[in-house]
Amino acid sequence: MQGSKGDMLIAGGTLLTMSAKMEIIEDSIIGIKDGIIVAVGKRGYQKNMNYSAQEMIDASGCIVMPGLVNTHTHLPMVCFRGMADDLPLMEWLTKYIFPAEARFVNKKMIYDGAMLAMAEMILSGTTTFCDGYFFEDTIAEAVLVTGMRAVVAQGFADFATPDNPKFEKMMGAADRFVRRWKPHAPMIIPAFFCHSPYTCSPATLVNVKKAAREADILYLTHLLENKDEIDTIINRYGKKPVQHLYDLGILDDQTVAVHCNWLTEEEMRIFADLGVRVSHNPESSMKLAAGVAPIPAMLKLGITVGLGTDGSASNNDMDMFREMDTAAKIHKVTSLNPTVMNAQKVLEMATVGGAKLLGLDDRIGSIEVGKQADIILVDMNQPHLTPLYNYYSQLVYAARGADTKTSIIGGKIVMKDRQLRTMDLNAVMENVRHIADDIIAKRKAEI
Amino acid sequence: MQGSKGDMLIAGGTLLTMSAKMEIIEDSIIGIKDGIIVAVGKRGYQKNMNYSAQEMIDASGCIVMPGLVNTHTHLPMVCFRGMADDLPLMEWLTKYIFPAEARFVNKKMIYDGAMLAMAEMILSGTTTFCDGYFFEDTIAEAVLVTGMRAVVAQGFADFATPDNPKFEKMMGAADRFVRRWKPHAPMIIPAFFCHSPYTCSPATLVNVKKAAREADILYLTHLLENKDEIDTIINRYGKKPVQHLYDLGILDDQTVAVHCNWLTEEEMRIFADLGVRVSHNPESSMKLAAGVAPIPAMLKLGITVGLGTDGSASNNDMDMFREMDTAAKIHKVTSLNPTVMNAQKVLEMATVGGAKLLGLDDRIGSIEVGKQADIILVDMNQPHLTPLYNYYSQLVYAARGADTKTSIIGGKIVMKDRQLRTMDLNAVMENVRHIADDIIAKRKAEI
Repeated sequence: MQGSKGDMLIAGGTLLTMSAKMEIIEDSIIGIKDGIIVAVGKRGYQKNMNYSAQEMIDASGCIVMPGLVNTHTHLPMVCFRGMADDLPLMEWLTKYIFPAEARFVNKKMIYDGAMLAMAEMILSGTTTFCDGYFFEDTIAEAVLVTGMRAVVAQGFADFATPDNPKFEKMMGAADRFVRRWKPHAPMIIPAFFCHSPYTCSPATLVNVKKAAREADILYLTHLLENKDEIDTIINRYGKKPVQHLYDLGILDDQTVAVHCNWLTEEEMRIFADLGVRVSHNPESSMKLAAGVAPIPAMLKLGITVGLGTDGSASNNDMDMFREMDTAAKIHKVTSLNPTVMNAQKVLEMATVGGAKLLGLDDRIGSIEVGKQADIILVDMNQPHLTPLYNYYSQLVYAARGADTKTSIIGGKIVMKDRQLRTMDLNAVMENVRHIADDIIAKRKAEI
Repeated sequence: MQGSKGDMLIAGGTLLTMSAKMEIIEDSIIGIKDGIIVAVGKRGYQKNMNYSAQEMIDASGCIVMPGLVNTHTHLPMVCFRGMADDLPLMEWLTKYIFPAEARFVNKKMIYDGAMLAMAEMILSGTTTFCDGYFFEDTIAEAVLVTGMRAVVAQGFADFATPDNPKFEKMMGAADRFVRRWKPHAPMIIPAFFCHSPYTCSPATLVNVKKAAREADILYLTHLLENKDEIDTIINRYGKKPVQHLYDLGILDDQTVAVHCNWLTEEEMRIFADLGVRVSHNPESSMKLAAGVAPIPAMLKLGITVGLGTDGSASNNDMDMFREMDTAAKIHKVTSLNPTVMNAQKVLEMATVGGAKLLGLDDRIGSIEVGKQADIILVDMNQPHLTPLYNYYSQLVYAARGADTKTSIIGGKIVMKDRQLRTMDLNAVMENVRHIADDIIAKRKAEI
């Protein structure tokens, strides 16, 4: 059989499959056809394969592994990267971020910011992300251009948002959003994102969940990011946030709670029983002094946990390698127990864990026959990655995003030898610089 | 006046001087003569300069700043990078690291490991480091080759070390070590390193301090890295570690205490009064679950604090940019207060703070006329560093070691456009791979 367009062989290097058996194959070969992995094995195995690939990728000296899954982003916030740091979360949010969003968020900012964020993500090994922001339609359009895989979640909050000045029209827009993007699965998958229990009324939380159930899509919300949230919700509703969401019937196995820094043991049991999933964003929560999520306890109870960077205004980068390093270390030091988290567990969270969280584990998260070809090559021929005793340790504790050499998403090469193939990087950076120049000029004019 | 050999101009970019006034100069120019900074100003200023440089470095699009100072390393431990992770500190130290050191440390391992570690450091923006290990003579010889600036500290412990099997001969060797390297100041500066109060007897601690005082050199020791150390010392000497060192007369303004994760408020006051300096290594202490040093409180009391990566067996990299990011975030989250540490303070710790700790602040740590030309250029034209609102935020929270484009130490270019000029990187990596292969083979043979 002759190779058809997009057929590809990745040969050489060491393959970390991240399959249930955590198989590691040295001098491996991967066959890809129509964006799907059709063969995985040791080199030499290719002789038995009944097709010839059009494109051959040499992975010598590399670790070959599933692309990383970033389960929580607000892409356009790259435009605010470094604008306001070292501040308390609520001050940061209400004095800087919300006003800046009300004033500077528009379709152009959304598109340009999303493009830059995706450049950054591809260059640091992420192949799939889950985003929640305004104008999510526009973000999905940018995703089509870059070739990334994304869960795009339309945002909801009980104040006029830049994309939906009339709050009452939101549900209609949400319905159109879902109908528009559903046909793009599994590259683009629509979802809904209620900002939080403190910015969304019970009615909004319930109505959006109802619509999400009808559309059979994921429902996300920030939850228990900082401690104050508990008092806010108790004062307003006479109960703690998890109880509040539970009583509203929000919590189920299509609900993703983001952060959960203050989740109690009892609340974890509720999550475990109902199948609620958790997105863990340690660097953002450290920088905002919001708290440290009790992830080791959650994993023990079998809760599905994925890793995320959060937006670039609170992290301030989208490098999942850095996030893995921090995720491994922060739980050790807060518990004074170096065995509560290890490199392999963290790499699982950043790949298969993220895929499970997004309901995509039948498609992505590991390198196995039948799955989507979302694959990265990490260049191990570097001083900070020398010598090499343990693949998981090296990737989590020593590698960094910039070590990603090549990235393939759905069988398409989006980066090769550090060169992006689906966008003009200089133009993408220049567009965001113009946006920042405008923000700086307008803010200066006010003083 | 004609330019003499080594004269250099760095033109363009934005200069962060890190001087007492924290002056920032856009479109800057720096003149260097005989390894010393002779002019600092805005471009155009060069017209008034009465010499012409032989070499011109274009810093457009870069941040120009002092090279980073890594105040705590064990260079050859790169050979053990990733060999034993996710273990408790004492198990890691006594079951893996000490046995591996007893068996595999020799002059060749020391030299090859030091070369690799220096490659990694130069490539990630460090220009000065302070190292403590065995065969420190050999490490200093490697430093001469790479052109880095280093405080090299001969190690002491009350067990037979690989370089000094006969403990009683240590002081004589130490004396020769100091006499050999003192003439190499300010590029190489000898010091003494007593491993810890729990591996060194009171006699060793006192004798080495006496010798350090006589030689007028720094005296370093690990202190209060993990909590158990307190009980160990109380059981042995009936007092806590700081009191133990105080009573022995060890603590003065030429003493550097490394880690200090469990330093109490009262002990901090003793340090502040006596001028004891502290090396802060947050990533290593997180990974070993050793603790978080109360750095914000130390800085409030005026204690000199420098930043360090520690050895690569416990971190597992030597990237000071990553260390800065973590240093900024860890104190925020453990105190739940985002204002206890900020980007500028962290950058100070990594530059002028480190210089002060090493007693070199009259020579390095900032870019000012009369100081040594230890300068790095950080390439800001990258997606994860776009846009740019705040220089300090961007460097600490978003930049990474690999963004260092060019490095100059003592007026000598050791890296330009990511290419090392003082060593053959592939050979350096290959040498360490051979060492690791040997370790792996010998350990396998035992099973």
